[in-house]
Amino acid sequence: MKICRYRLRCDDPNGAEPIRLGVVRGTRVHDVSAITDALPPLRWPFPPGDQFIAHLDTLRPQMEALADSVEGQPLDTVLLRNPVANPGKFVCGAGNFEEVLAAGGHPRRLGLLFKMTSAAAGPADGVTLRWPERTTFYEMEIAIVIGKQGTEIPAAKALEHVAGYCIGLDMTMQGSEFPSFGKSFDTYGVMGPWLTTRDEIADPDALDFRLTVNGEDRQVDNTRRLVLGIADLVEHAASVMTLHPGDVIFSGTPPRSVGPVVPEDTMHAWAEGLGAMTVAVTGGPGRRTPLDGMVP
Amino acid sequence: MKICRYRLRCDDPNGAEPIRLGVVRGTRVHDVSAITDALPPLRWPFPPGDQFIAHLDTLRPQMEALADSVEGQPLDTVLLRNPVANPGKFVCGAGNFEEVLAAGGHPRRLGLLFKMTSAAAGPADGVTLRWPERTTFYEMEIAIVIGKQGTEIPAAKALEHVAGYCIGLDMTMQGSEFPSFGKSFDTYGVMGPWLTTRDEIADPDALDFRLTVNGEDRQVDNTRRLVLGIADLVEHAASVMTLHPGDVIFSGTPPRSVGPVVPEDTMHAWAEGLGAMTVAVTGGPGRRTPLDGMVP
Repeated sequence: MKICRYRLRCDDPNGAEPIRLGVVRGTRVHDVSAITDALPPLRWPFPPGDQFIAHLDTLRPQMEALADSVEGQPLDTVLLRNPVANPGKFVCGAGNFEEVLAAGGHPRRLGLLFKMTSAAAGPADGVTLRWPERTTFYEMEIAIVIGKQGTEIPAAKALEHVAGYCIGLDMTMQGSEFPSFGKSFDTYGVMGPWLTTRDEIADPDALDFRLTVNGEDRQVDNTRRLVLGIADLVEHAASVMTLHPGDVIFSGTPPRSVGPVVPEDTMHAWAEGLGAMTVAVTGGPGRRTPLDGMVP
Repeated sequence: MKICRYRLRCDDPNGAEPIRLGVVRGTRVHDVSAITDALPPLRWPFPPGDQFIAHLDTLRPQMEALADSVEGQPLDTVLLRNPVANPGKFVCGAGNFEEVLAAGGHPRRLGLLFKMTSAAAGPADGVTLRWPERTTFYEMEIAIVIGKQGTEIPAAKALEHVAGYCIGLDMTMQGSEFPSFGKSFDTYGVMGPWLTTRDEIADPDALDFRLTVNGEDRQVDNTRRLVLGIADLVEHAASVMTLHPGDVIFSGTPPRSVGPVVPEDTMHAWAEGLGAMTVAVTGGPGRRTPLDGMVP
């Protein structure tokens, strides 16, 4: 199943209309927002984890039935948002492609970085470069969406904890700051075009993917070159942290093919089985920070 | 106002009894859990931010009235939990004490690191060292709890976005991993003993604090030696990210006085105006990770 969150292009972008929940079939989106009425209303404090993802297995039959019964909207009439509404954490594989180990680099280059969840964005949100004098790189990755709570999860059982996958653009500002900082600007965690459930991806460690910028190929690669594959990444993150439904692990990107984007660029990302999305880059306000001049 | 989340020592730790909300007055806790009925029940997707902190200004008069009307429990009969139930992000000041700049260290030593919110713990939870063969350091800090959403917040208005403060123990496993990784182990973000609202702290940039381990002084310092003070930290984080109610910024610790803890250690932390808490250190299961042997 392919699950998206979206607005219609004709919706008032500032209106009260909530973001819709859709099932994607072929080139159409079927509105299944009504099934979220089955999710219980909750009072503070909320349990950890995205409550829709946590109940996804139970909701899927109703979602299929509802998608059967409503006419679809053409995909090109909708604005796609981040498919995970309430992510709890973003973990990012680093140095996780073969050439990093082959080059004998510092071992800490292979590991996990983080991105604050306030950086979450969908394809229609685009990426805003907030510090215009600084360079931001694209990093195309596979985003692993956790479906079931767990910790100390062995790799052999790791995929049982995965709800599905989507494309992740782990945008990263370059500079001498700690690297997780450059990943955590608002809009620097683009996920989309939709969540493809795990049952649709036979082998997540053998997915072709491609990123173009303004129509030119920039990253053309395959997840079989990951050092820590999808299950290993889940095992490694869970070896120190409890993972919750809606947590996301970005796989890491092939480091040789990363590069900069500038305002007015258009990124187009495709991954085998996960769909394709177009993401616009814009410039932002670029307000000064107290560390300007202290951290070059 | 001093606001805590707690269980009674006589509560069944595995029972269905929810964690209680309390107002601390002197050495007693007054149960004001009933006021959370005033928070609206919500359905997925939840808005960002801790909904209790977001409504704190509105709820405070009712909390005071309720605390007046119920008899308090002695503090030593309760188990204190993390005062922020639904934190959205943990931002950690790094290299943020005077001696780091004075030593002319690499400028990236001053900046922001992150901690995953699944690391949140309260004093009664204690700290679990999950990888027993590795060393974990205490880092005593002031934790700034955001009260109002904002981004691009100038320092002059930053304190308006602060709900209050508590003590933060930013536990950090040492090693060649990226530093945010070593901060994100479950239980490595201890907050407590309670949230002291901003109005009770005249100058957060002049607070004495003290950490002892097994009764010996380890960190005795004052927040006036912070490079980025409390308002500057909020401004700097907000210069790239949207901050939400319940987000927490750990101030950073004086780096010369950090040191290791081992299982069976007892930490005791006190900060001027914020109270004191005792936190036990225990050993954990220490499951192997796929990077064992690759990252020394």
